[in-house]
Order: sequence, then structure tokens, then C-alpha cells
Amino acid sequence: MIQTDILIIGAGPTGLFTVFEAGLLKLKCHLIDALPQPGGQCSEIYPKKPIYDIPAFPEILAGDLVDNLMQQIKPFEPGFTMGERAETLDKQDDGSYIVTTNKGTKHQAPVVVIAGGLGSFEPRKPPIENILDFEDKGVAYMIKDPEVHRDKKVVIAGGGDSALDWAIFLADVAAEVSLVHRRNEFRGALDSVEKASELAKLGKIKLFTEAEVRKLYGDEHLEAVVIKYNDSAKGETYLEVDNFIPLFGLSPKLGPIGDWGLDIAKNAIKVNNAKDYQTNIPGVFAIGDVNTYEGKLKLILSGFHEAAVMCQYAYQIINPGKRYVMKYTTVGGVEGFDGTKKEAKKEVVQSIA
Amino acid sequence: MIQTDILIIGAGPTGLFTVFEAGLLKLKCHLIDALPQPGGQCSEIYPKKPIYDIPAFPEILAGDLVDNLMQQIKPFEPGFTMGERAETLDKQDDGSYIVTTNKGTKHQAPVVVIAGGLGSFEPRKPPIENILDFEDKGVAYMIKDPEVHRDKKVVIAGGGDSALDWAIFLADVAAEVSLVHRRNEFRGALDSVEKASELAKLGKIKLFTEAEVRKLYGDEHLEAVVIKYNDSAKGETYLEVDNFIPLFGLSPKLGPIGDWGLDIAKNAIKVNNAKDYQTNIPGVFAIGDVNTYEGKLKLILSGFHEAAVMCQYAYQIINPGKRYVMKYTTVGGVEGFDGTKKEAKKEVVQSIA
Ligand SMILES: Cc1cc2nc3c(=O)[nH]c(=O)nc-3n(C[C@H](O)[C@H](O)[C@H](O)COP(=O)(O)OP(=O)(O)OC[C@H]3O[C@@H](n4cnc5c(N)ncnc54)[C@H](O)[C@@H]3O)c2cc1C
Ligand SMILES: Cc1cc2nc3c(=O)[nH]c(=O)nc-3n(C[C@H](O)[C@H](O)[C@H](O)COP(=O)(O)OP(=O)(O)OC[C@H]3O[C@@H](n4cnc5c(N)ncnc54)[C@H](O)[C@@H]3O)c2cc1C
Repeated sequence: MIQTDILIIGAGPTGLFTVFEAGLLKLKCHLIDALPQPGGQCSEIYPKKPIYDIPAFPEILAGDLVDNLMQQIKPFEPGFTMGERAETLDKQDDGSYIVTTNKGTKHQAPVVVIAGGLGSFEPRKPPIENILDFEDKGVAYMIKDPEVHRDKKVVIAGGGDSALDWAIFLADVAAEVSLVHRRNEFRGALDSVEKASELAKLGKIKLFTEAEVRKLYGDEHLEAVVIKYNDSAKGETYLEVDNFIPLFGLSPKLGPIGDWGLDIAKNAIKVNNAKDYQTNIPGVFAIGDVNTYEGKLKLILSGFHEAAVMCQYAYQIINPGKRYVMKYTTVGGVEGFDGTKKEAKKEVVQSIA
Repeated sequence: MIQTDILIIGAGPTGLFTVFEAGLLKLKCHLIDALPQPGGQCSEIYPKKPIYDIPAFPEILAGDLVDNLMQQIKPFEPGFTMGERAETLDKQDDGSYIVTTNKGTKHQAPVVVIAGGLGSFEPRKPPIENILDFEDKGVAYMIKDPEVHRDKKVVIAGGGDSALDWAIFLADVAAEVSLVHRRNEFRGALDSVEKASELAKLGKIKLFTEAEVRKLYGDEHLEAVVIKYNDSAKGETYLEVDNFIPLFGLSPKLGPIGDWGLDIAKNAIKVNNAKDYQTNIPGVFAIGDVNTYEGKLKLILSGFHEAAVMCQYAYQIINPGKRYVMKYTTVGGVEGFDGTKKEAKKEVVQSIA
């Protein structure tokens, strides 16, 4: 059982910054995310695009924002349960909660913060009859660890950035990379399209366009796929493969959180925004894109503010009766749980002549 | 009369970022500040110190934060009335407001935003009997334009960073710089203390320590000061000077805003934080350090969020009945009033083989 002070569901920008604000209050955090990597929408949907309304960044790539946040929270040593979806919330007799994931991992904390954004990112699965039979047996909808594909024969399906970027990346790792796309045109960043084009010409990526994977074969594990061209005159291709990775995008779903007894409106969780961003369940907060209140803006900077406010109230739940006196970071410095300490240079007091 | 959409009192980080959020909504802003430079507390009190809790900046100097904000708002061409204090607020028949400064400058706008922080920064004045007689006639408590002192004989009083830094700066500009300090020890950044020490040794700064300016002489304009040593055995020095600049720090005072009929609690302005950060006076908002509500945190990141929310409601006042559909900056780009346009690189759609 993983135990912590604040259990955060969702490692998007809001969940990540919560670790920092909690850390200033000496509270430890653990994050759960369905995605393999932190950053939520920023990492999953638009890592290479610029954001212009992060205060004091005239421009920052979404991926860099996430990197900066990861660096900022490092001193507070957050724990991570990645690639798992939070499924159930159970209140304990001592007032704490146990959150269990779809893989059975259990987490216990006195405070639960839902920073789940638009929901847990779930893959769009292609309509292939027996695809469920091969999940985790050759079929995967995201790539958590590219080493799994070393020296394997891999088929990637999709026509966007993820499909292009992983095909490029795996060209150097896998024994064979095939890229299958329903259309002739790919949609992605210019450099990705160009790079994939080059590798296709060199034969390092086998290209099947205007085609779809239609059948999967195998005993215990995937052994082959059938690729069918749109143009029936071209017929089908039977391809021996180890792994099939359909990358048709991930779509967020509020999912199991919707059944936890929370007040829901407009597919988001109602919170007390006049005070602490607590939900109707005491000790359970909701911040960032996942919450709603009058005038709510689904902006990253709002998640940051909500995290700071919410942590003050979490402190009171975790340390009942104790008074926390806020100190500016400039004045008090930042003391990491890892023993690091950052602080402003002290002024000198000395005579000058 | 200066006319604008949103008149902002206070050019601290909160007021500055308001210009950006308003600009996204195509609303123009004008700022008033009692200080000569923008940045509020960050520029006036701790420009060279690091802040650690600005989201996605593991560390940033307060002065750099202000520089970044100035760069971010540049496309929205804010107007500035600097070095003047907002004194009166008068409601007009058309519902708009006229704000007049201590120097008589008038500003008109349908929406007024008070982002006044801890208040208007007012200089601490030394207790010299006739000092008021010489204000603007040789005596100044801040330096707005150093050129005023070119080839003049200048006396600076004080023992902190401002006194040191201006003495160093004016050593190259003024005909003569004297630095008078009550104690023997100065308190400032190491490099400032060292530099001042060096210039004192070279005779480019005349140093009077354990001494105070006690008397001012002059007809129309200041002509001389009397410096008295703490040690009475050392007596007094009569010094012919053009300008006397006591730099004993600025202390913030809510000041005239306190008499505008606003609901005040704990020396701050009560606002409706559940909605729009409006005060009890319709069309007058208060954001950043200057406002108060249950659980208020006087943090820079909170001012940023409050600014974003407040601008949405200002839009409704300025464009009654018009619906604003928010677009992410990443998706819609940023269109400056100066004709500049920033936007994400478009994805390409092309075949790759
Ligand atoms: C194309 C695009 C452009 C954008 N541009 C801007 C912009 O310019 N400015 C701006 O401020 N905002 C912008 N946004 C919005 C911004 O990305 C979101 O406001 C921000 O990501 C919200 O952060 P969050 O941490 O609240 O949620 P998210 O980023 O959505 O992260 C939530 C995380 O929680 C996880 N999760 C949810 N439920 C579960 C569960 N049950 N178990 C496990 N994990 C779960 C999800 O997998 C996800 O990783 C843009 C969004 C998009 C899509
Ligand atoms: C030493 C120190 C360290 C700090 N460290 C941190 C930190 O680590 N993190 C953090 O988040 N915050 C920190 N803060 C607080 C932070 O600086 C403030 O929260 C922030 O400056 C508030 O911004 P603001 O724009 O609301 O107000 P301010 O920065 O106070 O600016 C308000 C401006 O309004 C002007 N004004 C007011 N009334 C009038 C008037 N009637 N007419 C004209 N002008 C007027 C003032 O002159 C001033 O320039 C620190 C503060 C100090 C002093």
C-alpha cells in the first residue's frame, strides 16, 4: 500500500504544481496518471506547440512547461503510479481514503486531490474483431517503454504526430517498422513528416498508405496482421509481426470518477471556489480543468492558483489545530525533502571605507 | 483626458498581467503608478532576489519576472501614467469613471481595476524641519530621471541598496556625489557594497558615515546642507549642493483609495471572489495583494488568476450583450494592437513517399 499526505489523481500541469505548493507546507504527494508520461494535455496533445498566456513566459512550448514543472517539484520527491487509472475511492474509518487503480495498486492518504483534467486519457481503438484478445500480448495503444520493441517486428497504425514520431524513433530500435495509414497524407509537424519520408525512402520504414490493419493472427501472442488496401484491386498483405501499435489518439473520459458520488455538472466536478476547491466529499478536492464553478476558465494559470489555495486547506486537514504561517519563498527559501536548500543570497552588512 | 477600456491602478505584477489578459479580449489598458518604474514590490523592494514559487520557473529574479511581463504585454501597447498617485474616483452619468492623480492627470474608463498591492509606495521622509519647502526644488525622494542630476552637486542619504546603487550610478553623471549614512555599516548586495567602497577610495564618492543631514539652506532652490556627525566632537560640515536625495525606503500606504467608499477589511478591499473580483462599487474591481477574501493568499500567482477571471467580466461590462468565446492562445495565437501576430506553426498535411 502506497501511503502519502496528498494523493493526486492526474499528473497534468495542475497536479504537478500541487506537489510544489504542498512541499512548501512540508506535505508529501503521490500522483496517479493513466498516461505513461507526466504533463496531461500538454504532453499528450500539444507538446511541441507554444503557449502564450503562461504568466511571465511570452512564449513557452507545452513540453517545456512540463519539463520546468518537473524540475521545480523535484526537491519534493513526488511518487508516481503511471500508466494506471484510478478506479475506486473508499473512505476508511480513520477518515482517510484508499484509491485503487485498474491494475490493483492501492494508495492511502488523508487528502485526495482530483486534478484529472478532461478525464483519464483512453486510447481510441480500431474496430478489429479480436483486438482485445491480443492486448498486452503484442497489441498496445501507447508506448510506455520503447525497449519492449527492441529487435521486434512492429506495425504502427495512424497518420498523426504520434504515429510519425514513434515510427521514426523505433526505426533505430526495432528489427522492422511498418507504418500503416488509411490516407495518403500524413498530418504532423513539418520536420516529422520530412524525417519519416526520408526513412521511408531508405527502406527503414515500410510504408502502407490508403490501407488499414484488418485482421490479427496468433496463438498466445500476436504473430501476424493482415493489411487491406482501400483500393480493392490492390488486395491484402499478410505481414508477420510481433507487435501492433494503433496510435489513433487518446480521448479523455471522466470515467470511473463519475461514479464516486461527486456532484457533477457539465462533465466536471463542482467545487466550493469561494473557499478551498473542496468537492461535496470532505477531504476530496478538485482543481484544474476537472472542476467547475461560475466563471471557471479552463486555463493552466487557474489550475496553479487553485492548487496553492487548496494546499492551505489540505494542511489544516492533515495538521488539525496547527497554524501555518506563510512565508514568501524569497524570504524563507525552499527546503527540499531530498536535503537540497535554495535561498536568496543574504545581504552583506559592512562598512565601505 | 486619457481614455481607455480598463484603467488599472498599480503597475505591479498583477496590474501588468491584466494588460495581457485584457489584450486577448481586445480591450486596451492604461496603468497609473506612484512609482517611476513598473513592477510594484518586485521592482521596488527585491528586484535582485530570486522567487521560487512562480509556476514553471524553478527560480526567477523578481526584476526578471517584471521584465518578462513587460515583454509579454508589449503587443497590447499599454499606456502609463508613472510617478503619480491616483487620488479620486468620480462616477460619470454614462456609468464610466474618471480617476484623477495628485498631479491632476485625468483618466476615463468604463472599468477601473485596483491592483494597488499593499498601497501606493510613499517615501519615508527624514525629520528635517524645512524639508517640505524644498520638495521639487532640490529635494527628491526617488530618482525618476538621473539626467536631472547631470553636472550637479548631489547628496544622497541612506545605507541600503538604493542609496548605494544610485551613488554608484551618479558618480559618473553628477559633478559631485556625497553619501551620508547614520551608521558605519551599509546593508546591500555584496557587489554594490564593494563597488561603492572602491569609488569612495578613488574619491569619486565623498563618504560621510555616522552622520546625518540636519539642515537645509537655500532661497528659491536648495543651496547647501549641514551634515552633523553622531560624535559631537566631530561637529558639523556645511556642504554646498544642488540636490538632496534621501533614500530611506518607500512604504506602501492604501492612501486615498481608502476614501473611495470601498468595503475595506484588514487594510485591503473586499471582493466577490466566488465570481468576478468586483468590489462593492460596480465596475470597480480589485485584484492581487490589494484585495481580501476568505483564504486569500498574497501571492503573485493568485494575482495572475484573478486578473484572468476579472477580465472576462470586464468584457461583459464593456460589450454588453456580446458573447465572448474563449480560444486557447495556442490555438488562436496572440494578435497585438501593434500589428504583431504570434501563432503556432501550422501542421502540414502531406504524403511522405
Ligand atoms: C490544443 C490545446 C491547446 C491549449 N492551449 C492552451 C493555452 O494556450 N493556454 C492554457 O492555459 N491552456 C491551454 N490548453 C488547456 C490546458 O492544456 C489545460 O487547461 C491543462 O492541461 C489542464 O491541466 P490539468 O492538469 O488540470 O489537466 P490535464 O492536463 O487534462 O491532465 C489531467 C491528467 O489526469 C489524468 N487522469 C484523469 N482521470 C484519471 C484517472 N481516473 N486515473 C488516472 N489518471 C487520470 C489524465 O490522464 C491526464 O493526464 C490547451 C489545450 C489543448 C488541448
Ligand atoms: C521581500 C518580499 C519577498 C516576496 N516573495 C514572494 C514570493 O516568493 N512569492 C510570491 O508569490 N510573492 C512574494 N512576495 C509578494 C509579492 O511581491 C506580491 O504578492 C506582489 O508584488 C503583489 O503584486 P501586486 O501587483 O498585486 O501589487 P504590488 O506589487 O504591491 O504593486 C502595486 C503597485 O500599485 C501602486 N499603487 C498603489 N496604490 C496606488 C495609487 N493610489 N496610485 C498609484 N499607484 C498606486 C504601488 O505603487 C505599487 O507599485 C514578496 C514580497 C516581498 C516584499
